[in-house]
Amino acid sequence: MQLGMVGLGRMGANIVRRIVKDGHTAVVFDTNADTVKSLEAEGEGGSIKGTTDLAEFVAALEKPRVAWVMIPAGITGKVIDQLAELLEEGDIIIDGGNSRYHEDIKRAKALQPKGIHYVDIGTSGGVFGLARGFCLMVGGETPQVEHLDSLLKSIAPGIGTAERTPGREGDPSTAEQGYLHCGPAGAGHFVKMVHNGIEYGAMAAYAEGLNILHKANIGSRSASEFSAEETPLEQPELYQYDIDVPEVTEVWRRGSVVASWLLDLTAAALHADPELKSFGGRVSDSGEGRWTIDAAIDEGVPVPVLAASLFQRFSSRGEALYADQVLSAMRHAFGGHNELPSKS
Amino acid sequence: MQLGMVGLGRMGANIVRRIVKDGHTAVVFDTNADTVKSLEAEGEGGSIKGTTDLAEFVAALEKPRVAWVMIPAGITGKVIDQLAELLEEGDIIIDGGNSRYHEDIKRAKALQPKGIHYVDIGTSGGVFGLARGFCLMVGGETPQVEHLDSLLKSIAPGIGTAERTPGREGDPSTAEQGYLHCGPAGAGHFVKMVHNGIEYGAMAAYAEGLNILHKANIGSRSASEFSAEETPLEQPELYQYDIDVPEVTEVWRRGSVVASWLLDLTAAALHADPELKSFGGRVSDSGEGRWTIDAAIDEGVPVPVLAASLFQRFSSRGEALYADQVLSAMRHAFGGHNELPSKS
Amino acid sequence: MQLGMVGLGRMGANIVRRIVKDGHTAVVFDTNADTVKSLEAEGEGGSIKGTTDLAEFVAALEKPRVAWVMIPAGITGKVIDQLAELLEEGDIIIDGGNSRYHEDIKRAKALQPKGIHYVDIGTSGGVFGLARGFCLMVGGETPQVEHLDSLLKSIAPGIGTAERTPGREGDPSTAEQGYLHCGPAGAGHFVKMVHNGIEYGAMAAYAEGLNILHKANIGSRSASEFSAEETPLEQPELYQYDIDVPEVTEVWRRGSVVASWLLDLTAAALHADPELKSFGGRVSDSGEGRWTIDAAIDEGVPVPVLAASLFQRFSSRGEALYADQVLSAMRHAFGGHNELPSKS
Amino acid sequence: MQLGMVGLGRMGANIVRRIVKDGHTAVVFDTNADTVKSLEAEGEGGSIKGTTDLAEFVAALEKPRVAWVMIPAGITGKVIDQLAELLEEGDIIIDGGNSRYHEDIKRAKALQPKGIHYVDIGTSGGVFGLARGFCLMVGGETPQVEHLDSLLKSIAPGIGTAERTPGREGDPSTAEQGYLHCGPAGAGHFVKMVHNGIEYGAMAAYAEGLNILHKANIGSRSASEFSAEETPLEQPELYQYDIDVPEVTEVWRRGSVVASWLLDLTAAALHADPELKSFGGRVSDSGEGRWTIDAAIDEGVPVPVLAASLFQRFSSRGEALYADQVLSAMRHAFGGHNELPSKS
Repeated sequence: MQLGMVGLGRMGANIVRRIVKDGHTAVVFDTNADTVKSLEAEGEGGSIKGTTDLAEFVAALEKPRVAWVMIPAGITGKVIDQLAELLEEGDIIIDGGNSRYHEDIKRAKALQPKGIHYVDIGTSGGVFGLARGFCLMVGGETPQVEHLDSLLKSIAPGIGTAERTPGREGDPSTAEQGYLHCGPAGAGHFVKMVHNGIEYGAMAAYAEGLNILHKANIGSRSASEFSAEETPLEQPELYQYDIDVPEVTEVWRRGSVVASWLLDLTAAALHADPELKSFGGRVSDSGEGRWTIDAAIDEGVPVPVLAASLFQRFSSRGEALYADQVLSAMRHAFGGHNELPSKS
Repeated sequence: MQLGMVGLGRMGANIVRRIVKDGHTAVVFDTNADTVKSLEAEGEGGSIKGTTDLAEFVAALEKPRVAWVMIPAGITGKVIDQLAELLEEGDIIIDGGNSRYHEDIKRAKALQPKGIHYVDIGTSGGVFGLARGFCLMVGGETPQVEHLDSLLKSIAPGIGTAERTPGREGDPSTAEQGYLHCGPAGAGHFVKMVHNGIEYGAMAAYAEGLNILHKANIGSRSASEFSAEETPLEQPELYQYDIDVPEVTEVWRRGSVVASWLLDLTAAALHADPELKSFGGRVSDSGEGRWTIDAAIDEGVPVPVLAASLFQRFSSRGEALYADQVLSAMRHAFGGHNELPSKS
Repeated sequence: MQLGMVGLGRMGANIVRRIVKDGHTAVVFDTNADTVKSLEAEGEGGSIKGTTDLAEFVAALEKPRVAWVMIPAGITGKVIDQLAELLEEGDIIIDGGNSRYHEDIKRAKALQPKGIHYVDIGTSGGVFGLARGFCLMVGGETPQVEHLDSLLKSIAPGIGTAERTPGREGDPSTAEQGYLHCGPAGAGHFVKMVHNGIEYGAMAAYAEGLNILHKANIGSRSASEFSAEETPLEQPELYQYDIDVPEVTEVWRRGSVVASWLLDLTAAALHADPELKSFGGRVSDSGEGRWTIDAAIDEGVPVPVLAASLFQRFSSRGEALYADQVLSAMRHAFGGHNELPSKS
Repeated sequence: MQLGMVGLGRMGANIVRRIVKDGHTAVVFDTNADTVKSLEAEGEGGSIKGTTDLAEFVAALEKPRVAWVMIPAGITGKVIDQLAELLEEGDIIIDGGNSRYHEDIKRAKALQPKGIHYVDIGTSGGVFGLARGFCLMVGGETPQVEHLDSLLKSIAPGIGTAERTPGREGDPSTAEQGYLHCGPAGAGHFVKMVHNGIEYGAMAAYAEGLNILHKANIGSRSASEFSAEETPLEQPELYQYDIDVPEVTEVWRRGSVVASWLLDLTAAALHADPELKSFGGRVSDSGEGRWTIDAAIDEGVPVPVLAASLFQRFSSRGEALYADQVLSAMRHAFGGHNELPSKS
């Protein structure tokens, strides 16, 4: 089957690589001619054809055309509009980026009068997707999603990448192969959004726990190192451990309840840089963590853990500063307390 | 009635000032001779007698002696032990500092064989206590707390400092006058501990809210000021307000649901220093905020708000750094994301 | 000066009462004829004129007309549209309800071509506003807000209702009188929204703290009352207090750091119903708590405390149930743990 | 090598099974004779010898004796005391249960004068440990931990159970085989405690996210189903998804960032009981989640996510009720708001 790919960043290029490896063909578009040429060269037997001209790209696709857009969220809307001008009834536009699902609902509706179908695919897997396959969360109309089945199967990890869930029998569902039609337009990005919200919370759980291990020798500080306003430890003998955090993450990878892919990656990062000195601790957040909280609030679903993990990221970037100044100002006002200088 | 005061810091001295103003007398002790002399001089008609010798202090007290210890928590235990050596059956030791209530339970038990009574008094009011009176939360045996009644009444704010609660009639309870016998040994510090836990949460509520007001003009940042990893505002037109935060705190003081003494103080602090430039935003925590969470956990009481406010203080002092580095390391590992530099 | 009031619920009627008491006059509208008649009767010397016909209402107003809309948020938009049809260039529509400030920005823009001015007024004070005055947070154009000044002054509490903030001198600002022009359209509701967000957090701080006091006698439970899966108390002797929670809220009203109007109200509620048996504990949330978190996320401001307080309200209404079932299912899966039945 | 096991519950018995499968032998003790006999019968060639008499148990062990205690935390202390009476200098007591690490520090010290060595082993793996191996976190003196090496190796999962971490070379560390000497007495249980704290947070992240998916069709509720005090959805069209939550957990198992063992188990639980009707949603907590927060507070480490996950468990058991009643009482007091009845 043939796939058209718009945008040859890491994700777009790797998706193309996975499908041609499985015998599919690709027509690819990027504004950078070198990028296009280089990927074209990878395709054996002419399986990848490329162009820097969008009209040429569309012309090269077989009907019904399948155009997968894999570009930064900020310009996705514009490019989809351009594509829509060139495509015809029955063709399919896929947004595989990180759009907010609100956009999907609007776009699907806007394309409907032209008979162009819209499919949103939330894609997880990061830099490891080429090797491991991408987990695909798909929203759109059923006939179109079914039409894409053989492509999705090639991009997804496949059933062999995890042990079968006990109790599941017979032909594996697509979910067992790593891709799932979640519902109508937007459903794919909705599920991907919640996936990322969970990711925030799980990451924070590890990060906070490791911080406790990292400070487990605080009892060895002498009493004089505590300032007048600090609470000295009641039992410093309880905090005399020099924990080897990289080794702890390693041991948890085998047999423990918290074993996970995130932990695997953390163990690798800590092995490479045991004190994480290459990171300053300013944690970015992409939109999906925020949108998850918004959705939870709209639904009236309590998400104290997910929200706390988002807000901790904001704080990591200094965004709590004014609030903290207000707190110190209050303490000074009612108790005459002066702020203590930083230790470091 | 006569009160013995050990420790003439701001709190101890102000308590003495309040009782002598009401016609009581005081014997005071401090290790600093100048401090003692200076307070003695304030007492008209010899109402305040001072010494730097603990034995002399005890000797100057009428039986049953009342010795109020008002010194830093770190040395309270030691001084109480010294006092206990000098006191006799029937005498009363008061701990008016910020001891953990666990200590009160132990001390009351330890003093029992000698017939010395122990009373713990949680004291709120800060630097304004002299003028406004101190809110007193008292733990101990009933006869002793009753014996202290006239002193407590003089130290407390008195019924006139707040409107009477609708529905209350007849003789005012001591709570209506600003002091309360909360229960046996430790009960005073227990209630004071929870008071401070609430204080943390309420303070954080104001601080976070004011931070939202402070950033309400973020929509005026040009799009180019958002980095690739930041989520640009979907609707910058919603965040074009230059809010005068000091004036907002002032207007809320009258008629609003969030009017409070903490807000009064915040309004004053913001009037004096509208951008709070004199505060760096490193917020100290005393033990009581921590102990409150410990108690809640022991009791199985959910305190998400109080805990969040404590942890935000820890974060304000840089204690989340390692956790934040772990998060950035994970993001780099699965997504190839690089940390963004600080804007400032 | 004359005010037109649309909607004679408790808030609308009380605002009218406050201004006529100060010598202003009012034209009032409500769909309920009895309500209109009854309020008309209150106005001495014909100071209140009423009608159930919107066109009549508009006709009775002097130009430039001032029409204050004080009705449920759900129908505010519709009524403002109807009013806009009847009003003329130079007239002023006030939305004094609980609209989201997004609406204000849209409405002000929509009314601009007609020359009708739009003013949003966030109003705090609740059922006590008549007696205490209402705290007014105002958004809109400066000339119109200035035009309304004498009305706002009458509705607001006035400078005497709180001690003057130390350091403030000279003529009092309007904020010191209880009303504030916060910025252009929407600014009033924006500040009111944050006010309510803070209210949520502060309320939760009290509620959680009182819960700790309420369970302070948990140590008196016999060991056999703890189930196999519960953590028995390591030191039950620490939780033997029977705290009189109503009296504690009363004592904190005088001299303590957490004294506030919310605490005054809590003390009254606990005096009237010491065990709060008339409340089931299903806590409603109005939109403003939610919108506050949305705004914080848009601004990238961490609000762990405010968010936790909102989510606790969701949980109070059973909205965490599915999440809790997932947790129990996980525990059963990895540890074979069975859920424990409710004690009650 | 020989292991003595005290307590033949699921964990103790499975550990014995793992070591004898690897060629080791065991002496086992339990108060239940049938349990002892049954496990004895499993041991081929007499590799498992059992008794219900503790003295006999000790007598059957080769010196230096290794006695692994695997019983409920509540009685561990008592049994260790009994064992200590029977053991001799050089022998080793292992606590493999869920003791608080504070106890380990005390016990190791208490046993020192007798020359008995104390080793604490935090054990993760739950009901799957027999097949997958147990992740072992070990605290104690180095010579003793080294002495136990071949046993620990047999109990742990082994290096093959996870892909090797990139960058690790040469002989695998014990952590890579699934066991780790974390430090002196208590270090094993300390690391296990933090493991469980992380487990709480990660579990809550999944649970909250799935709850958002579960309610994604809330927009299909008609407007009339929202009560006066509820915020009706501004855009119900955004919440029209009927998400198949069991399939979503399945698809995330392959290739996604949130793939983990906890997710595997959740997928299995949801496959078996798609609506989780067999769970009421009252989530137990064992001590370790609580102790983790205590340790974080002692260290001054912010753990907003871990704490929120603990408190949500408390709330799931109704422990927020009084706080929620306080909130409703406040809302009634200032706004005249009545509580809304439950929908269900």
